[in-house]
Amino acid sequence: MEFFAVLDSQRALRRFRSDPVELRDLRRVLEAATRAPSARGAEPWVFVVVRDPALRAEIGRRYRAAWDEGQRFTRATDADRDVRTAAHYDRMMRAAAELAHSLHEAPVLIVCGLDHARLGPLAAPDGSLRAPAAAYASIFPAVQNLLLAARALGLGTTLTTLHRTFEAELKTLLALPDHVEVAALVPLGWPRDRFGPTRRRPVGEVAALDRWGTPLPERD
Amino acid sequence: MEFFAVLDSQRALRRFRSDPVELRDLRRVLEAATRAPSARGAEPWVFVVVRDPALRAEIGRRYRAAWDEGQRFTRATDADRDVRTAAHYDRMMRAAAELAHSLHEAPVLIVCGLDHARLGPLAAPDGSLRAPAAAYASIFPAVQNLLLAARALGLGTTLTTLHRTFEAELKTLLALPDHVEVAALVPLGWPRDRFGPTRRRPVGEVAALDRWGTPLPERD
Repeated sequence: MEFFAVLDSQRALRRFRSDPVELRDLRRVLEAATRAPSARGAEPWVFVVVRDPALRAEIGRRYRAAWDEGQRFTRATDADRDVRTAAHYDRMMRAAAELAHSLHEAPVLIVCGLDHARLGPLAAPDGSLRAPAAAYASIFPAVQNLLLAARALGLGTTLTTLHRTFEAELKTLLALPDHVEVAALVPLGWPRDRFGPTRRRPVGEVAALDRWGTPLPERD
Repeated sequence: MEFFAVLDSQRALRRFRSDPVELRDLRRVLEAATRAPSARGAEPWVFVVVRDPALRAEIGRRYRAAWDEGQRFTRATDADRDVRTAAHYDRMMRAAAELAHSLHEAPVLIVCGLDHARLGPLAAPDGSLRAPAAAYASIFPAVQNLLLAARALGLGTTLTTLHRTFEAELKTLLALPDHVEVAALVPLGWPRDRFGPTRRRPVGEVAALDRWGTPLPERD
């Protein structure tokens, strides 16, 4: 596929057909992830491809509980400064709620880890991050490559971070060492819904020339 | 360009020709950035396209000072747990040092901001992040889209985060409001060096099936 056709149509897809996903495709998607940049070229990523139904059920059960808890927290804190009134919000939240109750049905869960042992001065020995932005800048570009490559192959995904509330249990389930932080959990499969085009705020609203508040002209 | 041809050849390019970059191309690259996913569809990104030579000189001066300071810190903390012995390291660090002393020569600096005011429950009113991974997962995929789209157009970039040490001054220079955190600074221009293919650790080293330590087979 042409590059911009992939990029402009990649979107969150949260409902999957039960058809299996071949390892050959999974490896291509993971190889794409590894093409991303990372601070100091450390490549501090690890990926666990979860296909085992029992593991997916365990993760799905915890994810659903985290969703229910998260909804309570969100309702309590969101009153201001939020996107709850945006046009897309109710539809997106219904789809996300549906995913929370069916995560185990995704044929594959890709667990994306950030290996602190490869971060050098960006991580402290106690597991905290000295430079969080630089550290996450070394894993989320890889995750985005993964989402885009999946879309190029026709595979649906969505980037989730709700596992943070049960990260310790998740790491135990997957035998991940202490020095790996789970940055994202990406369900993946052949989608039941369609890719974009996506709708976003226009560039004119989110970009400025030289100083914030100065509009970016259309052309020179 | 074909999607995987872009993805597999995107790499950090840090030396630029002085030729100007047209606003039309810059807008296409920024539009690509906005196609990224974000938590709750909040699109919490802002971009400042810095072309003004005086501003670039100011930023470049601070960047060089931050680099010199960072080198001292890195040398003091890196002894273990690091990539300093990796084959790519010396070459990469020479290129990064060269960039640190010539940043102002990049015809464009794209300042990528994370707007806390759009993060709802992920951000606290005091400017801290309640859910850093989810927050950075809502900006670095956009930055990666930007790098990839630039490569698709033949434009060179590199993702940097060294501005963190002079972020307050940078925000003043660019008139960015308090609630915007600068997540990345991306120099951009027509490159003097070539795109990849990139070399990375093989998938077999960084991925596992179901549990860490279980090799991912080549095929089903």
